[in-house]
Amino acid sequence: MKFTRFMVGQDSYAGVVEGETIREIKGDIFTSWTYTGNVFSLGEVKLLAPLEPNQVIGIGANYVEKKEDLPSELPAIPVFFFKPTSSVIGPEDDIVIPEGIDQVKFESELAVVIGKEAKNVAEEDVLDYVFGYTVGNDVTAPQFFREDGHWTIGKSFDTFTPLGPVIETEIDPSTVMVEAKLNGVEKQNSSTELMIISLRKMVSYLTNVMTLKPGDVILTGSPLGAEMVNAGDSIECEIKGIGTLRNSFVTSKTHVS
Amino acid sequence: MKFTRFMVGQDSYAGVVEGETIREIKGDIFTSWTYTGNVFSLGEVKLLAPLEPNQVIGIGANYVEKKEDLPSELPAIPVFFFKPTSSVIGPEDDIVIPEGIDQVKFESELAVVIGKEAKNVAEEDVLDYVFGYTVGNDVTAPQFFREDGHWTIGKSFDTFTPLGPVIETEIDPSTVMVEAKLNGVEKQNSSTELMIISLRKMVSYLTNVMTLKPGDVILTGSPLGAEMVNAGDSIECEIKGIGTLRNSFVTSKTHVS
Repeated sequence: MKFTRFMVGQDSYAGVVEGETIREIKGDIFTSWTYTGNVFSLGEVKLLAPLEPNQVIGIGANYVEKKEDLPSELPAIPVFFFKPTSSVIGPEDDIVIPEGIDQVKFESELAVVIGKEAKNVAEEDVLDYVFGYTVGNDVTAPQFFREDGHWTIGKSFDTFTPLGPVIETEIDPSTVMVEAKLNGVEKQNSSTELMIISLRKMVSYLTNVMTLKPGDVILTGSPLGAEMVNAGDSIECEIKGIGTLRNSFVTSKTHVS
Repeated sequence: MKFTRFMVGQDSYAGVVEGETIREIKGDIFTSWTYTGNVFSLGEVKLLAPLEPNQVIGIGANYVEKKEDLPSELPAIPVFFFKPTSSVIGPEDDIVIPEGIDQVKFESELAVVIGKEAKNVAEEDVLDYVFGYTVGNDVTAPQFFREDGHWTIGKSFDTFTPLGPVIETEIDPSTVMVEAKLNGVEKQNSSTELMIISLRKMVSYLTNVMTLKPGDVILTGSPLGAEMVNAGDSIECEIKGIGTLRNSFVTSKTHVS
């Protein structure tokens, strides 16, 4: 099932995508919802990020190039970071390159949407707490990383977390391909089997530290191949079975919010 | 005006503290609220964190010992970090030391509560976007800091962000004293004039990166004197004019949530 949020004129709605149509729903997708009976055509709406996340958590440097490169020992403390919810945009919004720099980096990622409060969850039970999956682009301005390793500012600019196009509830996340095309040219295309810390391990680890809540989004890391890009470039992050998240890069001067 | 949240039995309420009484309010403290007419006595309620933050943002290493030590040049990129909202507890809750370690660190801080959406705000206008101030304790387990500078896990454990006892809307934040007493003995006591990056500068900087929202909480850094503590210790973080935030440290084994 593919959950979406969308706008028609000035009004926003939630819905379930079926082929080229969206059946409007009301309620809370994590607890209780119903169809309203209204139906929209995908072509007549503007898609929004498929949820307003409670929090966005990312993991750093989590892919190898090929299975033989997977380390035998995992890091004792993985590199996790938070991105502000204000950085989230939808599948048709522009990514704004901050003033003073020319380039930013795209990172196509499988994004996990937590559906139930989760604390001290064992690896084998993790998927019981996952509502579904979307595609995320962990846009980054490494120019705003500190040399001592603090990444917060470089990952926090408005528009730096495109999510979408839908939350798919029914894929198997363990073997999907995470792809990115820059101006139509493939740059990333790796199986989630190449994650150093698997989805189950990372969610379990997080729940041993903090209580995850419905609407928390976990960006599970980006395959090798991410690049710096310029205003005018367009990026398509894709996971077959979920969809394609397509955004264009613009400068702050040309951006009208 | 002192805003609070509190429980009576199993029910939670919001209110305004006046002396030893709390006048219940309903509505959204950031937009529109009214008195319900109900009055409680401070002695009969359990105080909660005075808000459920939208996000919690902290700043690292932001105090000097004395004014002469203030640097002439500010860091180009300040050390900011996020703490999960799930780490927030109230003024009467225990701080749970994570399994596997014996000690954690307290850090008494002035906490800014944002009241209005804020983007690209000039330093001189920052206070127009502040709703009020509370006391925060940025509890930290440096054992979970990575050597390469990533702090996320070490600051993210449940119970690691006590806030309270109230949000005071009417103090001047530029010269208050930020204090901490460990088991009754003073450990921190510095004026906010000793901040390296002032409150106005840090909020302005953040709004040039990200849109701050009502309910965002900014922990403005901790004075010199923070220490490692053990289960059984009790910490009082205090800012006169706001109040005292008193919590005890317990081990995860003795903690019943």
